[in-house]
Amino acid sequence: MASPVTPPRGMRDFLPGDKARREHVLARIRGVYRAHGFDEIETPVMEDASRLHAGLGGDNEKLAFAVMRRALTTDDLRSAATAVDLADLGLRFDLTVPLARFYASNRAQLPGVFRAIQIAPVWRAERPQKGRFRQFVQCDIDIIGEPGVIAEIELIAATSSALDALGIPGCSIRINDRRLLTSMLTVLGFAPELHAEVLITLDKLDKMGTTGVLAELRDRGHAEAAIEALAAVPALASFGAEAASPDAVLGDDAPAAGGALTAESIASLLPAGVDEAALTDLAAIAAGVGHAVPLVFDPFLVRGMGYYTGPIFEVSHPGLGYSLGGGGRYDGMIGRFLGSEVPATGFSLGFERLIDLVELPDGDGDGDAALVYDRDVAAADLMALKKMLVAEGARVRLVKRPKNMKTALDQLASDGFARFATVSASTGPDASALDWRTLEPSA
Amino acid sequence: MASPVTPPRGMRDFLPGDKARREHVLARIRGVYRAHGFDEIETPVMEDASRLHAGLGGDNEKLAFAVMRRALTTDDLRSAATAVDLADLGLRFDLTVPLARFYASNRAQLPGVFRAIQIAPVWRAERPQKGRFRQFVQCDIDIIGEPGVIAEIELIAATSSALDALGIPGCSIRINDRRLLTSMLTVLGFAPELHAEVLITLDKLDKMGTTGVLAELRDRGHAEAAIEALAAVPALASFGAEAASPDAVLGDDAPAAGGALTAESIASLLPAGVDEAALTDLAAIAAGVGHAVPLVFDPFLVRGMGYYTGPIFEVSHPGLGYSLGGGGRYDGMIGRFLGSEVPATGFSLGFERLIDLVELPDGDGDGDAALVYDRDVAAADLMALKKMLVAEGARVRLVKRPKNMKTALDQLASDGFARFATVSASTGPDASALDWRTLEPSA
Repeated sequence: MASPVTPPRGMRDFLPGDKARREHVLARIRGVYRAHGFDEIETPVMEDASRLHAGLGGDNEKLAFAVMRRALTTDDLRSAATAVDLADLGLRFDLTVPLARFYASNRAQLPGVFRAIQIAPVWRAERPQKGRFRQFVQCDIDIIGEPGVIAEIELIAATSSALDALGIPGCSIRINDRRLLTSMLTVLGFAPELHAEVLITLDKLDKMGTTGVLAELRDRGHAEAAIEALAAVPALASFGAEAASPDAVLGDDAPAAGGALTAESIASLLPAGVDEAALTDLAAIAAGVGHAVPLVFDPFLVRGMGYYTGPIFEVSHPGLGYSLGGGGRYDGMIGRFLGSEVPATGFSLGFERLIDLVELPDGDGDGDAALVYDRDVAAADLMALKKMLVAEGARVRLVKRPKNMKTALDQLASDGFARFATVSASTGPDASALDWRTLEPSA
Repeated sequence: MASPVTPPRGMRDFLPGDKARREHVLARIRGVYRAHGFDEIETPVMEDASRLHAGLGGDNEKLAFAVMRRALTTDDLRSAATAVDLADLGLRFDLTVPLARFYASNRAQLPGVFRAIQIAPVWRAERPQKGRFRQFVQCDIDIIGEPGVIAEIELIAATSSALDALGIPGCSIRINDRRLLTSMLTVLGFAPELHAEVLITLDKLDKMGTTGVLAELRDRGHAEAAIEALAAVPALASFGAEAASPDAVLGDDAPAAGGALTAESIASLLPAGVDEAALTDLAAIAAGVGHAVPLVFDPFLVRGMGYYTGPIFEVSHPGLGYSLGGGGRYDGMIGRFLGSEVPATGFSLGFERLIDLVELPDGDGDGDAALVYDRDVAAADLMALKKMLVAEGARVRLVKRPKNMKTALDQLASDGFARFATVSASTGPDASALDWRTLEPSA
């Protein structure tokens, strides 16, 4: 029988097994990021509504849960122009707006180049659907104050190490640069004010293919000359001709896998006249991260958010139709609340997507021990036994002897306990007298 | 110059040092609780408003931050009778209401006796003041499904171990029983409907002393015969005569410190005719936890919340004017959303109060290493050095060589870095060639 009592719509409870698994994975990610020199911070879950709706959050701003002012009177309700006037706070919908606010509040106490870890929940009032939740954990690293590509190199190296530590093989990191996209569109003849719209269409290349993208651009009335010029871009031409995945198109000969990426090899896929600085930067990033990180240049990687200003990246996994994370440079945004220009770049892992891919090692419960005790055992004896076992490093659960012993032992096994001993009134307080039996791991 | 950008009122940012300290302390508490057989769970930060305001939260319900319904129209504002009608969700103000909801939602998947850890933030729209915040972490353990005192014994043992693990010496656990309080007031002649009011006054004994308490009861018009009977209760008589602290009154001869507490010794402090079951239970708890836990019977411990039904407890520290935690049995509450009676008892540590008392060991940063690099160092070499050091277990921060080296080194030291090496273009990618220098810990 399903329980009629549920968490709020689109939000989840985590039972002990799930919670332990999540914390285990987060601890690994934290450990890698800390080793790479990043520092964890925490901000309140709420921000002032004016900060959340300052235009830094794109479409996500519309999804913010609004927190009502306290002690509102009926008069307040009658006189409010819109519901927005009744809310002074909101729950964060990402970790980037809070980071900008945090940096503005605390800059004086932070190193000149600040490497932040933020691992925390965010909330979005989206229509709940499979795999999409209204409360979910984001896992961000950001480097603030470093204008050079060493920042991107550190971010990519740390992210790649984290994926390795989680034992998720086969991931590659697709990389592009907003300046390349913008300069390419300019060269091709798309007017600047139409770039955002063209990028939205280009972003669908994986799903629609070249033919679909070109058709949508025509439907939307873009200049035919520009569309034809786009169709002739080497990377797009080869994309359409061979397969639906840029990775497959680029293949072994492509400027991928770290060291093979050079300014020239990238330029060869694009029309002449694209942004030179971006070409140099991408090549420098590839050289910096080296061959160990599977870096793939994807000339049509767009990333949704409009605030990106330089290199952008995304984690691809061959077996998945969605990315496991992404990020990019967003100079100009972190300094918004300061009124100054502050360079910044960040990489976010999609924790809720990663968690299902991670295989945890067996045997975490080896030290777990249950004491199944009779009702007439003296509590002091029972606690003395428990205390001794805890001191030996065990995790100990007390279980009153049940009528159905098998059900109880199955529950212990499924909760990860590896052994149990029975305790009767004659056992006494000496743990060395216990007769341990093994619990078979549950299927 | 103070920054004009701040977190929302009454809420805090945690900078790297503070965040690390908090996580370190929480990890220790978690570790002890897990060893004692408790399992961590997590619930969403929001609950349906109807659950939050079901009467389980006492006065705290009034402090809940309310989350507005989405897509409210101006008509909705005009037609709402009160602001409450505009909110369908709220932020939790404690972890007990969510636990009751969680248990109702997930009971079928939990062990018959469920030992829960909840370590998570809660929110209260209180007037911010020193040491009181609008977002703060609570640290609760609860045992659901066990009606016997073994549950209280396990809670007290686990809490005491956690305080030991945090290195906070000198704490004692004061214990009483709601049934003793209630039966005592009945025996003394206070009418049942006045008990709650009398208890509010009795709860001020530490601050007002016996004279103050008796005077307030007279001011409030309680029956003189009952007040005189109260004044004659042995524990109260001796309390007023000697000192302001019940601990001091009870002294060395008092029924304190575990094993010395018996049903008879407790009864000797109270009027004749108090609840026998409570006397037996308190004695059993004292016997169960044993001499190692400094347990003190406090006949005037009240605990604010009205939902307690049995043993109640509080952590006292000799140097502090407030408790470091508390709890008690609250049968009948966890089952509220199920419509059935479920025994439950819990113990909450006041994390925000504890955190300042914990002394952390020095030397956590022994592995921390900084690489101070010249601008012309190849990024690939720098990253190779970093990777080697990380693989050796170091935490590595890259620092571009600054104009003012001293300021940079001071920052590194204050951030916990123990050593640094400079990297020039001629250093190359071999970490064994680095010349390490020690950073003196900052004062």
